[in-house]
Amino acid sequence: MTTEQTKKQTPAAPKNGVRKSRNTKAPVNNEEKKSTRQSTRRYNTNRKQPKKPTPKPALPVHITMLGGLNEIGKNMTLFEYGNDSFLIDCGMAFPDEDLLGVDIVLPDFTHVEKCRDHIRGIVITHGHEDHIGALPYLLKQMIFPIYATKLTIALIDSKLKEHGLSGKVPLHVVKPGDIVHFGDVSVEFINVNHSIPDAVGLGIKTPIGYVVHTGDFKIDCTPIMGQMIDLPRLGELGKEGVLALMADSTNAERPGYTASERVVGESFSALFKKAENKRIIIATFSSNLPRIQQIIDAAAKDGRKVAISGRSMINNVTIAHELKYLTMPEGILVDIDMINRYPKEKMTIITTGSQGEPMSALARMAFSDHRQVDVGPDDYIIISATPIPGNEKTVSKVVNELMKRGCDVVYEKMYDVHVSGHACQEELKIIQGITKPKFFIPVHGEHKHLQKHAQLAKSMGMPAKNVLVTDLGKVIELTPEKMSVVGSVPAGRTLVDGLGIGDVGSIVLRDRKHLAQDGLIVVVATIDPINGQIVSGPDLVSRGFVYVREAEELMDQARAIARRVLEECCQRHTHDWATMKSRVRDELSRMLFQKTKRSPMILPIIMEN
Amino acid sequence: MTTEQTKKQTPAAPKNGVRKSRNTKAPVNNEEKKSTRQSTRRYNTNRKQPKKPTPKPALPVHITMLGGLNEIGKNMTLFEYGNDSFLIDCGMAFPDEDLLGVDIVLPDFTHVEKCRDHIRGIVITHGHEDHIGALPYLLKQMIFPIYATKLTIALIDSKLKEHGLSGKVPLHVVKPGDIVHFGDVSVEFINVNHSIPDAVGLGIKTPIGYVVHTGDFKIDCTPIMGQMIDLPRLGELGKEGVLALMADSTNAERPGYTASERVVGESFSALFKKAENKRIIIATFSSNLPRIQQIIDAAAKDGRKVAISGRSMINNVTIAHELKYLTMPEGILVDIDMINRYPKEKMTIITTGSQGEPMSALARMAFSDHRQVDVGPDDYIIISATPIPGNEKTVSKVVNELMKRGCDVVYEKMYDVHVSGHACQEELKIIQGITKPKFFIPVHGEHKHLQKHAQLAKSMGMPAKNVLVTDLGKVIELTPEKMSVVGSVPAGRTLVDGLGIGDVGSIVLRDRKHLAQDGLIVVVATIDPINGQIVSGPDLVSRGFVYVREAEELMDQARAIARRVLEECCQRHTHDWATMKSRVRDELSRMLFQKTKRSPMILPIIMEN
Repeated sequence: MTTEQTKKQTPAAPKNGVRKSRNTKAPVNNEEKKSTRQSTRRYNTNRKQPKKPTPKPALPVHITMLGGLNEIGKNMTLFEYGNDSFLIDCGMAFPDEDLLGVDIVLPDFTHVEKCRDHIRGIVITHGHEDHIGALPYLLKQMIFPIYATKLTIALIDSKLKEHGLSGKVPLHVVKPGDIVHFGDVSVEFINVNHSIPDAVGLGIKTPIGYVVHTGDFKIDCTPIMGQMIDLPRLGELGKEGVLALMADSTNAERPGYTASERVVGESFSALFKKAENKRIIIATFSSNLPRIQQIIDAAAKDGRKVAISGRSMINNVTIAHELKYLTMPEGILVDIDMINRYPKEKMTIITTGSQGEPMSALARMAFSDHRQVDVGPDDYIIISATPIPGNEKTVSKVVNELMKRGCDVVYEKMYDVHVSGHACQEELKIIQGITKPKFFIPVHGEHKHLQKHAQLAKSMGMPAKNVLVTDLGKVIELTPEKMSVVGSVPAGRTLVDGLGIGDVGSIVLRDRKHLAQDGLIVVVATIDPINGQIVSGPDLVSRGFVYVREAEELMDQARAIARRVLEECCQRHTHDWATMKSRVRDELSRMLFQKTKRSPMILPIIMEN
Repeated sequence: MTTEQTKKQTPAAPKNGVRKSRNTKAPVNNEEKKSTRQSTRRYNTNRKQPKKPTPKPALPVHITMLGGLNEIGKNMTLFEYGNDSFLIDCGMAFPDEDLLGVDIVLPDFTHVEKCRDHIRGIVITHGHEDHIGALPYLLKQMIFPIYATKLTIALIDSKLKEHGLSGKVPLHVVKPGDIVHFGDVSVEFINVNHSIPDAVGLGIKTPIGYVVHTGDFKIDCTPIMGQMIDLPRLGELGKEGVLALMADSTNAERPGYTASERVVGESFSALFKKAENKRIIIATFSSNLPRIQQIIDAAAKDGRKVAISGRSMINNVTIAHELKYLTMPEGILVDIDMINRYPKEKMTIITTGSQGEPMSALARMAFSDHRQVDVGPDDYIIISATPIPGNEKTVSKVVNELMKRGCDVVYEKMYDVHVSGHACQEELKIIQGITKPKFFIPVHGEHKHLQKHAQLAKSMGMPAKNVLVTDLGKVIELTPEKMSVVGSVPAGRTLVDGLGIGDVGSIVLRDRKHLAQDGLIVVVATIDPINGQIVSGPDLVSRGFVYVREAEELMDQARAIARRVLEECCQRHTHDWATMKSRVRDELSRMLFQKTKRSPMILPIIMEN
């Protein structure tokens, strides 16, 4: 998308409605004034309503990160200008390993709930889970219209269907160059490169100036899908004057440039040759359509068929094919159930599992648990991804297992089979350099990434006071003169476990951790409260503590201690069950720790007869 | 250690005893014939006993890996020639995250127990935990004499003291060039470079030829402690004829060379300048004495004091200082309790925690939980290590936390603050090239490392049938003509949890995993078996499932179901408690999964009145 195609908002845009300008090639809304941009300066006056007698006093902008700051994932930002508010992205995160049993992590929606009357919509930068994954959970509580590019909307729609929200949420497709109005604020969608097509950054125009949000991005001068990032438009905004820049910090630690996606295609060509008579199986992210396209192209060139494995891969390929993001030669696609009808050297399988996820298709192939694909020495396997931090071991396990089965495996940095979707330091500096923001807020990253990104900006001459590394929930106030934190709102995480949203908290997690470490012992006894006698028990049941058959003596000793404590309590006519339980717990704990150096959870249960 | 210093064994060495030749500089044992080596060929005749009338028929060599193959850690190998057997290393491993609650992992000693009468000793290559950590556990079961270099023996001795084995185990200090005899087999210790001083490889001489075991190694032409790896001696063995090579595969995936330890010292010099007026805190492995020496040197040059933090760091520095492995200027060492008496810019702290271990000194500093060290903007922190796979996230957490406190943090690849202790591909090829083994067994690595190492050997012209990638417990037979797997013995892992060794097995782990994921619900009821009535209960107690105060309705429903099932069973006069429990479990599970999509462990306990 070049800037020539970009249109400006009309002066007549209604205050609280939403309106889009379009590409010149697209039909133009009649309510909007048709014009081509003549000077970037004109943007400054666009918003003014001709009939207004006096200009309104300028307000400060408030930006509150509800996710994606000091963390990777669950990106969500609240942008406020007076009562004209909107959200940017609404993503989920995958749980850290200490969040035992938790399936996914959401932003805390408490503050969104509080401001819901002022929020005019949600703008989504691209279709990755960490930007759209929390939408169904938010939209079940409150409906907002959503604005995103075509592929992103399709992925959101598919997600909403899964959650029974189909048709309940207004979904608006926008294109790079389009502008959406939220009262006095307008959002322009700016084409960027990323590891999924249709990614956009945002040029947010407010009465006090532009705020530019890059979204996740990289600079790819030879992208496989779509156009190169719209640096000219970002440069124009820079010339007009950018009040603040919010930019992706994911790769801020990495020097240099991220390579073009095209490099991977060249590697595929070479590897398809090397694979010779073997079946080729390539694992990659199911949302990386340019990657998938390049695999299909390489397969087509090599006269191979393509089969798809893995739920999300099938889902995404289907959507992308329908929307024509993927181009495939007629008949190249083969159902995974039919792969054995073709010779191995004529087959390519594109699969999920590039992160070694235990239930993924590739992991199932590795552990001989895949219904249709049985791997062996005739398979040439390419893991077209690098492990996300924390996944190194699971990926290694899968690689080892595949190799044990005799497969050739290409992984990690062996060949250029993966490039990142995020900008490295030199690219980040280009964005700083052309947008020339007055203020800078590094976003999307752990603290170390944010700090490194802040240092980059300072190294380019930005005064330290104009750079803000802050935290979730901090309300950032921007005026033309100053950036400061003026308050804080509830922000953090909501844990989803099964159907439960937010019902797993610190106590449940603490108990799970305790149980995971040392298991538990349940001590049950029935006591007659009248004559203070043990009627039955104490019985001991243990799980996850020791293998009981080999620890009978220990369990006998434990039972004897429980009995002694209960009898002592009964003799003293203590009918205070709480005290009795706590004494059983203490004495058993002490003995067990002494004998085993373990501290199982002890759960005394006293039944009254 | 140069080969000139190497001495040969005397012809009169007793068959089943152990004997050492020494460096020319060391006192020479009177029983041994004093000689300088004139030709490497003489080694071939050394072992022969002059009075023996006829040479014994040659036997095959058997090598069984009991640890360290298809895994990183718990290295242990059984080497057998007839009844002349010995062990190489006896290490532990740290548990994978799926081994919930497990503290350390040991090799399975079953087969060692079985062969104990033929095992004449344990040869240790160096003092890392994955080579010595399992010794106390083995030696508590059976005593063998141990042969290792000075530092290694000191570290073993310290470990045995902790386990109450002090003085109970014969510990023999050897030097590179020394030879130890186990009957018809002798073991020569060969100096190698690694990330701990005093590391050795082994030249194992048998009647059918040499087997060379590299131990963990790298080629460091400018080591900080000790001499460069004894390539000349390895070359001599190669000329004499090496039947088989067993070599370290840890870095077999990495092209090129591992940099010299000296590079890190140069980085320290530069970073000490950059740190200017800040306190310097450096985290590294407590066994990396060359690294610690370089920190001390940099501190001394910069006029700084040095304090030591972390239990293992204090322990190792103390041992190394006593044995004169570390040289320190008088008065440079300061007790950690006294650090506040010195200005920050005059202080260096060497600490544990380079892997982000949650209880380590550095992690405690990061989370403001360190008794003596309170970090902030006046601290310049260097993490002189790279994360071991699996530790990336814990290291990141510590880095983020330190940065949040305003510390400068140098980590990962920002500067050359760490080099590996293991050989990369070019170094591995050098060892192959100079030892020219007939057979090759890659060891010490996951399957992917072993495969890559095997490919390297084949790429140098070794026939595929002469390279063996095998598994733990496989008995490898070597004859002058052939290498093959001729059997297998019990091998695997023994889990240590607290004082329990081997009492945590698959059932306990499965239960811990279940409890960790979804918690549990205990259902208790007292039933009168005579008239078949519920006397009390059912009571429900849950832990790690839901926060009960907010899920009262769900728990009420669960209780109602439990009551209904028990009543139905009682009405049918079913006194089969097992059936009753299993029905309670099934029905509750079904309901809870339907309502929550979670599957807590359900533990029904029925008490008889």
